[in-house]
Amino acid sequence: MNYWRSSCSWRVRMALYAKGLFSKTKYVAINLLTGDDTKPEYFAINPSGVPTFIDSDPASQPITQSLAIMEYLEERYPGGEFPLLPRDFTSRAIVRSISNYIASAIQPLQNLGAQQRVDKLAGPDAKKAWTSGVIAEGMDGLELLLKKYAGKFCFGDTLTMADMCLVPQAYACRRFGVELSNYPTVFRVLQTVEAMEIAVATHPDQMPDAIKQ
Amino acid sequence: MNYWRSSCSWRVRMALYAKGLFSKTKYVAINLLTGDDTKPEYFAINPSGVPTFIDSDPASQPITQSLAIMEYLEERYPGGEFPLLPRDFTSRAIVRSISNYIASAIQPLQNLGAQQRVDKLAGPDAKKAWTSGVIAEGMDGLELLLKKYAGKFCFGDTLTMADMCLVPQAYACRRFGVELSNYPTVFRVLQTVEAMEIAVATHPDQMPDAIKQ
Repeated sequence: MNYWRSSCSWRVRMALYAKGLFSKTKYVAINLLTGDDTKPEYFAINPSGVPTFIDSDPASQPITQSLAIMEYLEERYPGGEFPLLPRDFTSRAIVRSISNYIASAIQPLQNLGAQQRVDKLAGPDAKKAWTSGVIAEGMDGLELLLKKYAGKFCFGDTLTMADMCLVPQAYACRRFGVELSNYPTVFRVLQTVEAMEIAVATHPDQMPDAIKQ
Repeated sequence: MNYWRSSCSWRVRMALYAKGLFSKTKYVAINLLTGDDTKPEYFAINPSGVPTFIDSDPASQPITQSLAIMEYLEERYPGGEFPLLPRDFTSRAIVRSISNYIASAIQPLQNLGAQQRVDKLAGPDAKKAWTSGVIAEGMDGLELLLKKYAGKFCFGDTLTMADMCLVPQAYACRRFGVELSNYPTVFRVLQTVEAMEIAVATHPDQMPDAIKQ
């Protein structure tokens, strides 16, 4: 269960693609703008919007939170085109650090819920400044992390879960006017990942609920 | 590297305790109020404050982000008193969903950084209302999750990583005036976990940098 523009949904779409499951998974649109996610039946499954993943395995239950879904896919479907995590303990930890940095230290402050709160508190101009401010500050930290760890991808020369968090974050940067070329390492990695089919095929504009502008 | 009152630091202290490593791990205080975390040398290691974990293994590197550290401890030290995750795929996913819900959907909106931003934007009263508002809304969702999954603990009758996220979240609720008895399932689980030595020995007030009030 997805919303086309949600960063967290896109992370999971990329992970499904990496496991060869993207085209086999049914896409169910949840419209965050009209409050589909706050209807009691859905809210009881996922109190934080999207994504929700329901495996075809009848023994499984709906899984929520993008990183939890990605970890599940990695454990449950160790095959597929790309593993989401490297093999050794420390490398896995660093990939998870970068992924969690994006998922906890940047995205929650920029998402629709936070924006609506700031708008209510101080109006649309403050909302705009808040959003670009939290993103720019978060990206400063991300650039430092990638400077230390990136090769062709976020962590060395292998595509991982961290790149699947980076691509949607870059989309949010463009959408809210944060200039990506200010972050040269991030920018370099993006040029590689965004050209790959895993990013192209799962792009928000390709989703059935996308609103063309 | 810890700050006594940081929720994310406390999560890791509990995970270290579960692995029998808490008393063997050197505690290094990073004072977030005086900006220890923004000094260039430290900021380059961890651009999001605390915690940072450095393993005694010389091949390892500093690991940041509480959940990434907890996953590392679970993989690297599978023994210890308590495993942080259950065994089967779906149960592991649910525990990670609950943990990530606290770590991404509640905590980032209530933390010191977010509070300082709101204070600057709209003053101390707005800050206070923001903090208790985001926590109360997040706790509504957490109560629903626990109602579905909790037994004696957050997930069934076994202590997991999710309980190690819950205890610091409850501390934040009390600190910012959110009444825990409004969330009966959360409240019930807390009575069990907070009485355990793992929560008592790692409590912020027991830390060397704690400021007595």
